[in-house]
Amino acid sequence: MKVQLQKVLPAEIERRSFEIIGEELGNIRLDPVNEPVIKRVIHTTADFDYARTLCFSEKAVEKGIAAIKAGACIVTDTQMARSGINKSTLAAFGGEAFCFMSDEDIAQTAKQNGTTRATASMDKAVTLKKPVIFAIGNAPTALVRLYELIQDGIITPELIIGVPVGFVNVVESKELIMQTKIPYIVAKGRKGGSNVAAAICNALLYKAKE
Amino acid sequence: MKVQLQKVLPAEIERRSFEIIGEELGNIRLDPVNEPVIKRVIHTTADFDYARTLCFSEKAVEKGIAAIKAGACIVTDTQMARSGINKSTLAAFGGEAFCFMSDEDIAQTAKQNGTTRATASMDKAVTLKKPVIFAIGNAPTALVRLYELIQDGIITPELIIGVPVGFVNVVESKELIMQTKIPYIVAKGRKGGSNVAAAICNALLYKAKE
Repeated sequence: MKVQLQKVLPAEIERRSFEIIGEELGNIRLDPVNEPVIKRVIHTTADFDYARTLCFSEKAVEKGIAAIKAGACIVTDTQMARSGINKSTLAAFGGEAFCFMSDEDIAQTAKQNGTTRATASMDKAVTLKKPVIFAIGNAPTALVRLYELIQDGIITPELIIGVPVGFVNVVESKELIMQTKIPYIVAKGRKGGSNVAAAICNALLYKAKE
Repeated sequence: MKVQLQKVLPAEIERRSFEIIGEELGNIRLDPVNEPVIKRVIHTTADFDYARTLCFSEKAVEKGIAAIKAGACIVTDTQMARSGINKSTLAAFGGEAFCFMSDEDIAQTAKQNGTTRATASMDKAVTLKKPVIFAIGNAPTALVRLYELIQDGIITPELIIGVPVGFVNVVESKELIMQTKIPYIVAKGRKGGSNVAAAICNALLYKAKE
């Protein structure tokens, strides 16, 4: 079988991809403010389910962009998510991306407390002296701990990107976050991932830069 | 609405997740050698499509494991994929994970040649003096360049993990790889990603370690 490649210049690949996504969404109407986020997640996953499952609290995108512009940090629950975030754009606004998961104290604290490292990472994030956006693409236990810290009045994140993936307490942890008064972008259901978390951060970063 | 969390110990979450995946696969029969790879990809994505779309050349998993045991390196096309690979397990076998995408010479070469950085990264990988597994989760242009390098007899990878995601030449680039005589693990269709590439590497690494 002869494989026919399309001739698309390197600089045109992303633009053409977004065109195709737009075409295939067809009659599905997206909120114009949320649209760049939804499309970038579909671009990252080739999964159109996200047009249906991504949930945004009121003005979540605007609030996320404003936080970035004000120099907010981003805290992730995986090195992968941190790795996928456009850190130079974030730095241009004075922000920084953190992932505490591999820190030595995190492993110790988690072991002592019988929790996941993700839980211990959220506790460590409390010590940051800057406004924080959380981008959680892996561990539902991170979202559960954030929920507790919010309920106890210990932290007030600027935005929670709640897109862990998986089978144990993933759906439930997302529901918890949607019950708080914190701005959120959540992928309902089991799907999500570090790549999705990073894609949402980047969509906000690119909008902030415009 | 009251959210009910399941009580699962941190150490048990992954095992319980794999149990759920097994239950939900139901009557779908997986090749027992490929099964740990397929299940780990589903674990990473919560997307059961992969039970259908992951294609393995003959003995691809065995060959990948043997290559790891012999100290093969892994070359990725994103920092995210590299970040997700269990590098300490890889190092225990003498291997190392590389991603050349952010290297200064890659940006220059790509600009000079009017190619993507992924294409230039594959050319750079030719200079590695060790057996190589390629784990491509993002750029179809990386797979296209690998195909050309293989056809020209310039490289003979131990294994190609071909799971780029997207809309432009993604499907086609995977078809090209499946036409070579190089062992491959490919996710047919548009889906894939850096997370999927890393998950496949880790499934092989954990099997090698057993």
